[in-house]
Amino acid sequence: MAQDTTGTFTKGQIFDLAFDCLHRNGCDDENARAIADNIARAELDGCASHGLFRLPGYVAALRSEKVDGAARPHTAVSQKAPSVLKVDAAGGFAPLALEVARPELISLTKKMGIAAIGVVHVHHFSALWADVEPLAEAGLVALACTAYLPAVAPVGSSTPFFGTNPMAFAWPRKGKPPMVIDQSSAAMARGEVMIAARDGKDVPEGVGLDTDGQPTTDPAKVLEGVMLPFGGHKGSAIALIVELLAAGLIGESFSVEAKERDNADGGPPRGGMFMMAINPDMFGDESWDAHSNTFLTKLENLDGVRLPGQRRIANRTNNAEHGIRVKQELLDTIRSLPSLE
Amino acid sequence: MAQDTTGTFTKGQIFDLAFDCLHRNGCDDENARAIADNIARAELDGCASHGLFRLPGYVAALRSEKVDGAARPHTAVSQKAPSVLKVDAAGGFAPLALEVARPELISLTKKMGIAAIGVVHVHHFSALWADVEPLAEAGLVALACTAYLPAVAPVGSSTPFFGTNPMAFAWPRKGKPPMVIDQSSAAMARGEVMIAARDGKDVPEGVGLDTDGQPTTDPAKVLEGVMLPFGGHKGSAIALIVELLAAGLIGESFSVEAKERDNADGGPPRGGMFMMAINPDMFGDESWDAHSNTFLTKLENLDGVRLPGQRRIANRTNNAEHGIRVKQELLDTIRSLPSLE
Repeated sequence: MAQDTTGTFTKGQIFDLAFDCLHRNGCDDENARAIADNIARAELDGCASHGLFRLPGYVAALRSEKVDGAARPHTAVSQKAPSVLKVDAAGGFAPLALEVARPELISLTKKMGIAAIGVVHVHHFSALWADVEPLAEAGLVALACTAYLPAVAPVGSSTPFFGTNPMAFAWPRKGKPPMVIDQSSAAMARGEVMIAARDGKDVPEGVGLDTDGQPTTDPAKVLEGVMLPFGGHKGSAIALIVELLAAGLIGESFSVEAKERDNADGGPPRGGMFMMAINPDMFGDESWDAHSNTFLTKLENLDGVRLPGQRRIANRTNNAEHGIRVKQELLDTIRSLPSLE
Repeated sequence: MAQDTTGTFTKGQIFDLAFDCLHRNGCDDENARAIADNIARAELDGCASHGLFRLPGYVAALRSEKVDGAARPHTAVSQKAPSVLKVDAAGGFAPLALEVARPELISLTKKMGIAAIGVVHVHHFSALWADVEPLAEAGLVALACTAYLPAVAPVGSSTPFFGTNPMAFAWPRKGKPPMVIDQSSAAMARGEVMIAARDGKDVPEGVGLDTDGQPTTDPAKVLEGVMLPFGGHKGSAIALIVELLAAGLIGESFSVEAKERDNADGGPPRGGMFMMAINPDMFGDESWDAHSNTFLTKLENLDGVRLPGQRRIANRTNNAEHGIRVKQELLDTIRSLPSLE
């Protein structure tokens, strides 16, 4: 994998770097392609915390054989009810299972008006916006969430209990990129805390507690201790909703249960993902797009306001033109990752 | 309406007080009953901000003829798609429209696995938990949201743009009351800020800005100025999702649009409500209830943690036994409300 003369990479080069690394470590072609595509999209959009930074975790989970790099979710999509699908990811990573499920969810939602899917026996380690954006590109409203390993204390306690529990929401806009929200239920995404720790930067107050349950701004201490939900009891309630949908509803592991059976190899635990989609053509009338765009334009014209996801879209354009910068230290780490014999 | 000797009311007495007042001011029997029932449930559960406190607003909207107290949503339920319903509330208050819609949404969700309803041309002035709780009592997971009048500044701005935009989520528990979350997207519910202003109490920092866009803890100044979303940009994103579902999706007014056509009589503007329900029997397996209860029990056993809605359920038991206290000043206000000739 050659770095070009400006010290930057194309999306294709990021893909190749990730694909080769995954392939060398137990992923078959299809899984390596789906994951590498996800990583390359994250890097293109400037989401460093879900890009190449995740490769060591993917590799660890493959090498420990916790995750099956050759998992085949293809034949496992089943219809649980007229508007409900289920995919058993068969112990693989999420990207391929979601690729398989996506056209079925889109087609069902277009017909029924609203539909949902539970993805079980899956290891989700990627950016959630990347999962909902394609649904909005297909003209649907989409919402997804997934639990993880206990890292966030419910408001009032100092015990890690909730996962960072991201929730993503995508809104389609005809002729424009969808508006996509992707936010952790933690005050800060764990990936961002990890990046801050790596870069030796403080995190704001309110992000977490140390191992004694005391507030700290040291990201390393937060990672050892516990993170806090965003927005006090209201954010804590959002984290709880994510657990109930992504675990309780679909019959997968709550974050506390995921930890009990995880081998702590640094990769993602077995868990579940809840995703739903809505066909806006079947709720109001055909003016929904123009009506909503007027509203969104008013919003982004307010002083100091930026629509969610705009920085990502700007990064996408900029990085496509000028190349994607990757820190040398991260490149060294990736290049030093082992290969299976 | 007689107050009993301990200075408290029964739920039935609260109902009668509200029913009589609404009926004297233009509600027909069915609308007065549905609203009074909602108010009485709020008082029983100790939710003063959605109880009798709202009566002057209901009455103002009836007297200005903004809201039709004799609206008949009955014949207006229509199926927009196999899993999507729509109710035109015909310019009435929400409670009767929701009573009409509820059995249809329950029945459709039980069959389809997931279903949603858009309620349009409605004036929503009541507690949102009261709308989702009956769905969970029927064994369904439920989510609802509604926009309002612009009162909350998107993060980064000081312009009222979002409504307080409540979102409610209900989770069914066999043999137990459902777990119900009901939270405004504002740092504090507008009703609570109004109660604080009435009682001469400060609100915490971060709740709002004064008319100059400066932080203040004076609830009266916040009511004149602007409230802030909970949890910074993440809460602001939740408020945005509520606008898009309760207005953009279903074809009703965004909060900023609702203001443009509202007559500022103090009652609720015309708007929309989005509600969806999920049948948990059609996602995982039959163990979802036991599995989730184990999780919720672990959660409430953590030091310092209380499940959402528990205070309300405790109030319900306590107030049923000991009576519901109502402030004399509020009683005086209600008793001084006019009657239509």
